[in-house]
Amino acid sequence: MISSEKLNKIYSQMENEKLTQMLVSDPAAVFYLTGKWIFPGERFMALLLQKDKKPVFIVNELFAFSEDIGAAKVYFKDTDDITLVLQRLIDKGSTLGVDKIMPARFILPIQETKVAANLVNCSPIIDEARSLKDEEERQLMREASVVNDKAMDGFKGLLRTGITELEVADSMLKIYKDLGASAYSFEPIVAFGANAADPHHMPDETKLSEGDGVLFDVGCILNNYCSDMTRTFFWKKEPTAFQKEIYALVLEANEEAEKMLQPGISIASIDKRARDIITKAGHGAEFTHRLGHFIGIETHEAGDVSQANKGITRPGNIFSIEPGVYVTGKVGVRIEDLAMITEDGCEILNHYSKKIETIS
Amino acid sequence: MISSEKLNKIYSQMENEKLTQMLVSDPAAVFYLTGKWIFPGERFMALLLQKDKKPVFIVNELFAFSEDIGAAKVYFKDTDDITLVLQRLIDKGSTLGVDKIMPARFILPIQETKVAANLVNCSPIIDEARSLKDEEERQLMREASVVNDKAMDGFKGLLRTGITELEVADSMLKIYKDLGASAYSFEPIVAFGANAADPHHMPDETKLSEGDGVLFDVGCILNNYCSDMTRTFFWKKEPTAFQKEIYALVLEANEEAEKMLQPGISIASIDKRARDIITKAGHGAEFTHRLGHFIGIETHEAGDVSQANKGITRPGNIFSIEPGVYVTGKVGVRIEDLAMITEDGCEILNHYSKKIETIS
Repeated sequence: MISSEKLNKIYSQMENEKLTQMLVSDPAAVFYLTGKWIFPGERFMALLLQKDKKPVFIVNELFAFSEDIGAAKVYFKDTDDITLVLQRLIDKGSTLGVDKIMPARFILPIQETKVAANLVNCSPIIDEARSLKDEEERQLMREASVVNDKAMDGFKGLLRTGITELEVADSMLKIYKDLGASAYSFEPIVAFGANAADPHHMPDETKLSEGDGVLFDVGCILNNYCSDMTRTFFWKKEPTAFQKEIYALVLEANEEAEKMLQPGISIASIDKRARDIITKAGHGAEFTHRLGHFIGIETHEAGDVSQANKGITRPGNIFSIEPGVYVTGKVGVRIEDLAMITEDGCEILNHYSKKIETIS
Repeated sequence: MISSEKLNKIYSQMENEKLTQMLVSDPAAVFYLTGKWIFPGERFMALLLQKDKKPVFIVNELFAFSEDIGAAKVYFKDTDDITLVLQRLIDKGSTLGVDKIMPARFILPIQETKVAANLVNCSPIIDEARSLKDEEERQLMREASVVNDKAMDGFKGLLRTGITELEVADSMLKIYKDLGASAYSFEPIVAFGANAADPHHMPDETKLSEGDGVLFDVGCILNNYCSDMTRTFFWKKEPTAFQKEIYALVLEANEEAEKMLQPGISIASIDKRARDIITKAGHGAEFTHRLGHFIGIETHEAGDVSQANKGITRPGNIFSIEPGVYVTGKVGVRIEDLAMITEDGCEILNHYSKKIETIS
């Protein structure tokens, strides 16, 4: 059911942007507003929001459903011309917002048949609303991270000398499902030894050896909300002085960035704080990615924690803090938590220990 | 490496369409042409094809790679304006083809900054090339279906009275991986009893009972090519007369449709043949979907086997033949093979028995 709070947040932003009508077609945005997940594949689907009118949900009859979502429903068939359906609903004299993912196969015909005066990308309006999680969403995000914390113990329990990354990865989904999660929020990263120096390493046939670092970057979906956490452990042997040095450095960057979190600070400054620590220690070139990303219904939502983000933190923002140092061919360490900006500070959603640990 | 055969097929089609430049951005289409899979997420990526010029691959530097793919490479940074990159490469006085999936976040700025005279959807050109599998692709499709045939025995072996659909589904990926497949080609459908009457049923907590029908609609990816097959079995008890009647009807529709396959016939007529058999038996309204879909690098490629498809079969076309009858609340049967049109007839890629079978 469309919440009037969410809708009002969006209408007021539309007014600021002088926009009177918009088509929301991203399935995650439609879910955010209506509570209904529909993946129409290559077929058209959109929630039409117009000032002073009831929302209209336009969807192929194959996805017909009975519940009331607080919107009028307009069904069409595979043989219908979608531009004719839209012409009946949209004010052709005004600008129409479309979201950033609407594909050329709809955009070009909408333009050619002059459904609206012109098109603008209205995703920033929805993205901003989604970045300000309400109390219900905050609780769901907490719960998804609680499951992620618990699962990490299960993942550690899979390790044995000689097991491959793929063998570990193949057993992870069951651990999440046994804890009530429905799915991964992204394909898990399991990286042994030097593989951890590739921040996007996909699990392969590499076998676990004593003395390896073990990096788990993992997340699940619980009740439609995503978790995401990274921990780096060491297997059987005390880490070398170099491994310890890198670990301590990444941990310091993680903790110092988290310490500064509160509403109203520059998002760029958070990245800068973590990066300065790593750069000062001579490893700046080996921290090759942004500090974090926003998260919620999707693992990567609009909003980077990077120096390109000119925004400020606001209550309800939830993002990752995930500094890493990647020394090619040698060692990779990343330590990641989800952090939630609150009205008066910050809440870290992950509680799994970050103390350096040798699993024996 | 871009094959000159594939490229020439596309250039000649561009000439027919009077198109001199196009951006291919669909990762599957880029893989089809270059052999390189890159998923740029929200970042821009495209292969620019221009008459009489070497192809240019435009990609974020994060995805830089060293091998020669037969295209010049143009890297850009996250901070670059992609429209400026494109302006340097594209003839602004001519029409530009963009593929159907290119999203509004690129389309609208390309239009606003007048990168080209106008935009057209050029996906039909690539889609047609992809629908005509060459010998190498045909062999890869055969091999993926061989694995799917073998896996079906493994899936049957998971069944026991009282097991849930989800428990079965959770064990299926391992069976595929043990056979060398890299992933599912789609989330498998496992449906017990009346659940099989929903053609898109997702595995749930339903437990297997004696006398149930068991529908498996499954596929895997092997060496980047997809398989897709459906079989419907019966568990422990001889099927009822009604179950047998529905099964025999669906099997007849499947076999009669497959019998007629050869190059040069109307694709609509294949759907009609299967549908007429089911309709004549009084179950037409319970065969609720198209007869099949094209398949290759992706499970659903452009091209339906339906009466809306005005095309004719051509050598190298590979599509599913999957009639079904869905009697709500009672029974659902679907029987699906992949079929490949050859120069002088047809080759069915699945060899798993379709004889009615009670698993005991």
